[in-house]
Amino acid sequence: MTSPHHPDPRRILCLGMPVLDMTFRVADVPVRGAKIQASRLDRICGGNAPNAAVAIARLGGRARLAGPMGDAGEHGMEFVSDQLGPEGIETQHLVHVAGAVTPVSTILIDATGERTGITYRDPTLWTVELPASDLLLDGVDAILTENRCASFVVATCAAARDRGLAVVVDADRAMPADEPLLQVATHVIFSAEALRATAGADDLTAALRRLAGLTKAFLAVTDGDQGAFWLDRDGAAHHTPAFHVQAVDTLGAGDVFHGAFALAIAEGSDLEPALRFAAAAAALKCSRFGGAFAAPQRPEVEAFLTR
Amino acid sequence: MTSPHHPDPRRILCLGMPVLDMTFRVADVPVRGAKIQASRLDRICGGNAPNAAVAIARLGGRARLAGPMGDAGEHGMEFVSDQLGPEGIETQHLVHVAGAVTPVSTILIDATGERTGITYRDPTLWTVELPASDLLLDGVDAILTENRCASFVVATCAAARDRGLAVVVDADRAMPADEPLLQVATHVIFSAEALRATAGADDLTAALRRLAGLTKAFLAVTDGDQGAFWLDRDGAAHHTPAFHVQAVDTLGAGDVFHGAFALAIAEGSDLEPALRFAAAAAALKCSRFGGAFAAPQRPEVEAFLTR
Repeated sequence: MTSPHHPDPRRILCLGMPVLDMTFRVADVPVRGAKIQASRLDRICGGNAPNAAVAIARLGGRARLAGPMGDAGEHGMEFVSDQLGPEGIETQHLVHVAGAVTPVSTILIDATGERTGITYRDPTLWTVELPASDLLLDGVDAILTENRCASFVVATCAAARDRGLAVVVDADRAMPADEPLLQVATHVIFSAEALRATAGADDLTAALRRLAGLTKAFLAVTDGDQGAFWLDRDGAAHHTPAFHVQAVDTLGAGDVFHGAFALAIAEGSDLEPALRFAAAAAALKCSRFGGAFAAPQRPEVEAFLTR
Repeated sequence: MTSPHHPDPRRILCLGMPVLDMTFRVADVPVRGAKIQASRLDRICGGNAPNAAVAIARLGGRARLAGPMGDAGEHGMEFVSDQLGPEGIETQHLVHVAGAVTPVSTILIDATGERTGITYRDPTLWTVELPASDLLLDGVDAILTENRCASFVVATCAAARDRGLAVVVDADRAMPADEPLLQVATHVIFSAEALRATAGADDLTAALRRLAGLTKAFLAVTDGDQGAFWLDRDGAAHHTPAFHVQAVDTLGAGDVFHGAFALAIAEGSDLEPALRFAAAAAALKCSRFGGAFAAPQRPEVEAFLTR
């Protein structure tokens, strides 16, 4: 991924759900029953897919975002287009679900940069029907989605597979062995917690091996500053270390990783450089505040990789 | 306080700050680094003084609310008048501070009803200048305020004292020995944490005795389901137990206590029945969801006290 910016930007369809992230900067996470003060509050558009879309756009790709949003609730919805529009993200396929409220997260960013989150998602959002796959996939080179949204994204992911596109799945929570996404995915990147819960194994490499029997997809897991573990096509285990930075805000770091990885794959990168590229983008993100809006530009990542 | 509803409602001036309380219902408070789901989210107008104002209005008094609010921020300010207006609270003396954002709290209500809070308050709000005391005090029988707001309420409290009115102070955080509010207050009700921090003593009665040298005000402390401890005019210590209820939401319970107490004092009640009335109102509040909007009506409290 030290090659110059791809001359023909690849477009990634990001399927997921915008979230209003209320980020409170605090000294520590409060103990039960305490009342604490925050030194700062920001309201930013978050959510796995929107965060990844921001990273993709910053890294020189094109990002199209589709999924459900609310049409009710006092905080309005203008924060999504207000914040994603200037990033050049295509938001016209977001679906406003009648009577639903856009998800809201409280994110506590503590003095070490660690994020702790509480999210409310209106159950009505899961009833969304996405636009036709032909419309969503027009001009698209790859899909990135999150397994939380499996119920409404599988059809579009299957259509993408029929077209020979990469389908990258961010597995952020445990899933059953018969999860259809495992069959349509080309690449599944787990969080450490979701992998352990899905595989029922503590050791991350052992957990990946256990799941390899359930899917033909490339399997990887990210474990924060421990880096990423993954299996190659022959089932051999590999480790891509994380780049060490002074972390001030880890919010969205995993999403930036997934976005960068999906873009690299869409650009034809091999797995190992794609993972290194993703790790570099995520590390740079952690070094500054702002959730995914702290994601780096392409030249920053390339400079970082050639240090 | 088992007497019938006071024929001539007393008006309490509540000085403080409205807060947008985002209440998330959760199983438990998250550990650092975790991401958890909330089963419900409500956006309610909170803050010590507004909560007390709701309780006063429900209990048959009149409540006038004054203090600073933001004029910026995506969540708007309509939630204050939208929610307090129907309660009959006089909000015309709230001051919109140019460039400031209304305070926002995330409140986690766990399965036991305990509340854990994170609050952001824009420092610009402390520069507020309240309307003239003559205007604020017109038709007012007592003041209720919070020591957090000392910087902008002392003048109005002093003017109230000159008129012979009760000035009830909710001491929700530690204060210095030379805090001017201690001189103008007629009644100071501490939270246990604030009392310990102010007096530098762990035992609540000992802490009250230590502070008795600094003020002529009536001194009390509330300690959740342990009830209230207080000193009579001769310095003797007393205990008013809490009423035990199945708590589902303790948010605002202290504020309801203060509002009920201030109203009872304004109605001419003696101390002990005023404290019992306040404890009953707070207990009923804890038995249902909704922050201070779960405060009881007067007949409910009277029925509860004669069980």
